[in-house]
Amino acid sequence: MIDMNTTVLIAVVAGMIGLLFSLYQRSYVLAQDEGSDRMKQIAAAIQRGAQAFLSREYRAVAILVAIVTVALVFLSSVPGSGMSALTAVAFVLGALASGLSGYIGMYIAVRANVRTAQAASQSLNKGLRVAFASGTVMSTMVVSLALLGISILFILFVNELGNAAQAASALAGFGFGGTSIAIFARVGGGIYTKAADVGADLVGKTEAGIPEDDPRNPATIADNVGDNVGDVAGMGSDLFESYASSIIAAISLATSAGAFVGDGLVAAQVFPLLVATAGLIISIIASFLVRTEEGADQEKLLGSIRTGIYSASVMIGIVVIILGFALPFGEKNVGIVIATLSGLIGGVLIGYFTEYFTADTYGPTKALSASAEGGAGIVVIRGLALGMMSTLAPVVIVVVVTLLATSQADLYGVAVAAVGMLSTLGITLATDAYGPVADNAGGIAEMSDLPEEVRDRTDALDSLGNTTAATGKGFAIGSAALTALALTAAFITALTAGGSTALGAAVNPADLLLNPQFVTGLFIGGLLPYIFSALTMVAVGDAAQQIVEEVRRQFREIKGIMEGKAEPDYERCVAISTDSAIRQMLLPGIIAVGVPVGVALLAVLGRGNALGDFVAPITLVGVLLGSLVSAFMLAVMMANAGGAWDNAKKNIEAGNYGGKGSDAHKAAVVGDTVGDPFKDTSGPSLNILLKLLAIVSLVIAPLIGSAFPATAGAVDEQAPAIERTVDDDGNQASDAGDDSSGG
Amino acid sequence: MIDMNTTVLIAVVAGMIGLLFSLYQRSYVLAQDEGSDRMKQIAAAIQRGAQAFLSREYRAVAILVAIVTVALVFLSSVPGSGMSALTAVAFVLGALASGLSGYIGMYIAVRANVRTAQAASQSLNKGLRVAFASGTVMSTMVVSLALLGISILFILFVNELGNAAQAASALAGFGFGGTSIAIFARVGGGIYTKAADVGADLVGKTEAGIPEDDPRNPATIADNVGDNVGDVAGMGSDLFESYASSIIAAISLATSAGAFVGDGLVAAQVFPLLVATAGLIISIIASFLVRTEEGADQEKLLGSIRTGIYSASVMIGIVVIILGFALPFGEKNVGIVIATLSGLIGGVLIGYFTEYFTADTYGPTKALSASAEGGAGIVVIRGLALGMMSTLAPVVIVVVVTLLATSQADLYGVAVAAVGMLSTLGITLATDAYGPVADNAGGIAEMSDLPEEVRDRTDALDSLGNTTAATGKGFAIGSAALTALALTAAFITALTAGGSTALGAAVNPADLLLNPQFVTGLFIGGLLPYIFSALTMVAVGDAAQQIVEEVRRQFREIKGIMEGKAEPDYERCVAISTDSAIRQMLLPGIIAVGVPVGVALLAVLGRGNALGDFVAPITLVGVLLGSLVSAFMLAVMMANAGGAWDNAKKNIEAGNYGGKGSDAHKAAVVGDTVGDPFKDTSGPSLNILLKLLAIVSLVIAPLIGSAFPATAGAVDEQAPAIERTVDDDGNQASDAGDDSSGG
Repeated sequence: MIDMNTTVLIAVVAGMIGLLFSLYQRSYVLAQDEGSDRMKQIAAAIQRGAQAFLSREYRAVAILVAIVTVALVFLSSVPGSGMSALTAVAFVLGALASGLSGYIGMYIAVRANVRTAQAASQSLNKGLRVAFASGTVMSTMVVSLALLGISILFILFVNELGNAAQAASALAGFGFGGTSIAIFARVGGGIYTKAADVGADLVGKTEAGIPEDDPRNPATIADNVGDNVGDVAGMGSDLFESYASSIIAAISLATSAGAFVGDGLVAAQVFPLLVATAGLIISIIASFLVRTEEGADQEKLLGSIRTGIYSASVMIGIVVIILGFALPFGEKNVGIVIATLSGLIGGVLIGYFTEYFTADTYGPTKALSASAEGGAGIVVIRGLALGMMSTLAPVVIVVVVTLLATSQADLYGVAVAAVGMLSTLGITLATDAYGPVADNAGGIAEMSDLPEEVRDRTDALDSLGNTTAATGKGFAIGSAALTALALTAAFITALTAGGSTALGAAVNPADLLLNPQFVTGLFIGGLLPYIFSALTMVAVGDAAQQIVEEVRRQFREIKGIMEGKAEPDYERCVAISTDSAIRQMLLPGIIAVGVPVGVALLAVLGRGNALGDFVAPITLVGVLLGSLVSAFMLAVMMANAGGAWDNAKKNIEAGNYGGKGSDAHKAAVVGDTVGDPFKDTSGPSLNILLKLLAIVSLVIAPLIGSAFPATAGAVDEQAPAIERTVDDDGNQASDAGDDSSGG
Repeated sequence: MIDMNTTVLIAVVAGMIGLLFSLYQRSYVLAQDEGSDRMKQIAAAIQRGAQAFLSREYRAVAILVAIVTVALVFLSSVPGSGMSALTAVAFVLGALASGLSGYIGMYIAVRANVRTAQAASQSLNKGLRVAFASGTVMSTMVVSLALLGISILFILFVNELGNAAQAASALAGFGFGGTSIAIFARVGGGIYTKAADVGADLVGKTEAGIPEDDPRNPATIADNVGDNVGDVAGMGSDLFESYASSIIAAISLATSAGAFVGDGLVAAQVFPLLVATAGLIISIIASFLVRTEEGADQEKLLGSIRTGIYSASVMIGIVVIILGFALPFGEKNVGIVIATLSGLIGGVLIGYFTEYFTADTYGPTKALSASAEGGAGIVVIRGLALGMMSTLAPVVIVVVVTLLATSQADLYGVAVAAVGMLSTLGITLATDAYGPVADNAGGIAEMSDLPEEVRDRTDALDSLGNTTAATGKGFAIGSAALTALALTAAFITALTAGGSTALGAAVNPADLLLNPQFVTGLFIGGLLPYIFSALTMVAVGDAAQQIVEEVRRQFREIKGIMEGKAEPDYERCVAISTDSAIRQMLLPGIIAVGVPVGVALLAVLGRGNALGDFVAPITLVGVLLGSLVSAFMLAVMMANAGGAWDNAKKNIEAGNYGGKGSDAHKAAVVGDTVGDPFKDTSGPSLNILLKLLAIVSLVIAPLIGSAFPATAGAVDEQAPAIERTVDDDGNQASDAGDDSSGG
């Protein structure tokens, strides 16, 4: 029997191997040729811009992290709060690890771009190798840091607190720290990247008629910086958090849900860590399988990436089966294996269906391209409809995985399904992070006048990146939904820990399902993603508008730009994007953290008085479930509609329906413009919104629980539902309050 | 004390008065001058087209109604099903009444349009009077038929069944019948109207450069027919159903929720009928207040409509207070009055905020117009963001109304809040139905070359109609959400009637909230509105494409059309729109009825076996709550974004940002094209989707309930949750099934 100490030792060794591999890949990338002076100069500008943005972002976020840390320390010092000061420790470490993941990813991406461009002048395979290696630097770093952090903290916390349940609770702080960084990285990076992209395109391509990435466009450096800060750093922090949270939720549910005892309990706690460990090592091995030959077409390039992912999935699947039977789960072994595999397979299927809906090799995006002949309005309507229809597959997959996992292994099953889905992260995230590097490489090739054949190779690599980016987004959303579900389960379970009456005592199901606080919580939760998306979409629009005005000003005031005689002021556009993104990321981020805290606070304040008629702990449960459903649909819709519009435009640019410059192309460009904030700002931010709401709730669950202590003899009066109660004294207002707050 | 017999007598008398008033207004409208032969000829073509569509639609729907009726009769004949054959009777009558409401509304609208055009050549006030009078024909008919149907059926059913609870249950069939017609009327009419509109605009305005409603455009008659079949007939059936269902839900909850006994029970049953009765009479009185003076500007015209609605609201509010204190509610009187008033006021507020977000006199739509200078992509992004942000107000209002109503009067409070909100329907629906008539009048004025000043007057009336249509849509969605909530409450309550174990026995709240069947139900429910909207938006696109091709063909093949020498083949476009709409309305409609029935069937089949791990009655509860939240947000977003795009375009056409023909105008037209299916097809159809899911569930509730009979001694094992159960024998798969199905 593998005990927890051994498991942690294994995980730490694997994490160290991962870090070493990441460093090795880093050295490999940095050892590549940087090309000409012109290329170095452009790359340096991108590096400066990305560095400047991340510094500003991290400084702004550091203040918020400090405030939250102080709040967590304060709350844990309140007698009887049920929270440990270790939560604050975990929070800070989680924030640091998440920030570091994003930073390292960005650091290597802005250095790999120029080297990929140079490598592509040698061969396609060389270009792919360099770009993909840079992706593995971040992906292995993310996975290793998460694994090291969780395993070391868990064992320390268990020793310190002497109790696995409390240790798991404090560990939630690690996920919370990770999400706090992720939300700002995704929202801020998403605003930056799309403001620069849309702004550069609107004036450069549309008004001035110069090609994409043309060095005369003052916003072109900002555009290339954006690819790195949004798609690399944001994605890194986002998936760091999903990965960490899924493992934390699994440990937490193994410990607190009461389904496991003795050796089985230890097995349930070590299983997610061991699966993750295996996933890390297997991903490293599988990354060597990603290679191609000269003259490979899109299908072959995609095939090489798929070989890596599918091989990793099969190997992990085998390890899951072995682990499931080797650990002392007793007769639960089959169920736990099925649950974990369902998540693993579900993730692969979500990736497939995302590709089906967004790649122009399949029907939906082909039809979208064709509809561009009907004009911009039609192409927008069709794209929205495509996005809506595409929610079917991921929702059905998540539903099936959830039902299968819970029927086989209760709530613990959902958590290990999420762990299973994310176990391939070491390689799937590498394919994601690869995209912006290839995109940048193309930009640098264009700006530094490399030969046509080099640009053709970087275009091939870039196009592959678009497909993997779309698939990666589908995977990120699906895994976020499953992770959030597991976190919500952990939250609800934690709310009732120690006999807390936060959710009231046993009730008739009808009373609970009709509980007005619960139902209104669902509405509020359903609303949040809409408000959040509205804010982020408007932010992109506003920031893009500023870039447009600045680019127009430079074209007007700096003489000789268009003739290539004068250098545009790239730094100014970088500064504007940075300022807008930092300023506008705050409100959405604060809403995401503030709403669950606010609802919890009101629920605690409303205990035993009239306020309790309106807000109770069950309201927060409603908020989580409502936002989960609403954000999941909206995120899938936005990501897939955006991806499909992008590829429909590229399909027309490849010569269909009149090709570049035709009316159909103009219509498709409108679709793509709408899709930009959809797929790169609002959609991906929703992933984090739903995880953040759940993990904040989980962190403060002990606080809510302790405000509603178990009280002997009060059990029968504490039903949280207020309806169906024949009210003898007729004094409904206050009576309902008493019922729902259980005071 | 007013007993049920007296109440029914009062309601029947009021309903008769309403019918007489409706007939009187009909005679008034028909007595007006029809104008020139050219005008009569055009009007006749519109009448033929509308008549043809409605005949086709009703024939198609009749088959489905017959099938459902047979199914209901069969189900009620199964021994122990708990369903009464009277449900089938109520279903048929509800379908007839709903169909009749739509038919009468359409009948008068296609006759009032030409008379309004002629009246407008005399004066603005005369035009307003005729158009508004035609609106009152439908609105009073809808309200009267609903009131008569419910009150008469209720008293008959009580006598027949000897039991108010069973009578209320059978009465749900009346609402079901109404919704069944409504879903096809809204979806079919919505597809028709937007296909014709978009198709006519794309070729006529954009390609051929001829004005809107130009008689040379072969699709112009179809476009005018569309206004009537979508906005009049569809809206009539939709609100008939909301109105009827809110009253049915109130009676049902008064009867079955157990909060009322003795005189209080009778009071709770008669109160919704009396409020509705008062609303009908007061609406008739208030409709006389809607008048204006010559040369009135938009603000004054809107003021005249508002005078009518606000006066009616105040008068109804007073009656609610009097009734609340006059009826023997005991100490519950204040609570019931507050609950009802909260709905009444909430409805007015939703109308106000809808106007705020969609009228170009306020900031949001002004900013949207301004953004059109940034191009089509930007205007689409901003419009979507505006729509998303606009969900805030209605959601908060519905949440506050729900919490206030339940805290004051339990679930019954939600139902009477819905009744309160809909009590002004006699006048609010008239303002809605007025819109298409004014729109058609403008079309007829254009096609028959009436003087400029007449067209100016009809334009003023039309513009007012756009505002009232947007407000009306907000009101329709808000009331649908509240009604669906009340219906869901009635459904859940009915599920547990007679000690049924459909939802299991008392459980720990955590177990229930984490129940996988419930949570996956939420996901499926959240998904439905997206699939539904995708289908309807694609349907509009496909149908519009056919119209575009037909119009192009006629321009090409019929010589002399453009010179006005040859008559286009209007009938062909009407036939194409009709065919497409009828064909494409079926799938969305069948999904809406099929999903709850399918889930219920699986739940019953899964009782006591492994299927029960996946589907249980609580799944259906999840579907209802998930769809309620998801459809509400999406419907508000679509309706308001669509309204705002429409008005932003009109704002630019009024001379702002370069006026007609400018780049900003072209961008705004793209927004408007996207908005068309949003606001007139998909958005409004979602109202009905959410009500239909709930009422179908309510109708089949006795069936589900009787499949899970109360079993003595099994109470403790029947918890529907499967998690948190320490599983002794380890045989999880089948054990979970037993738990959840309570067999």
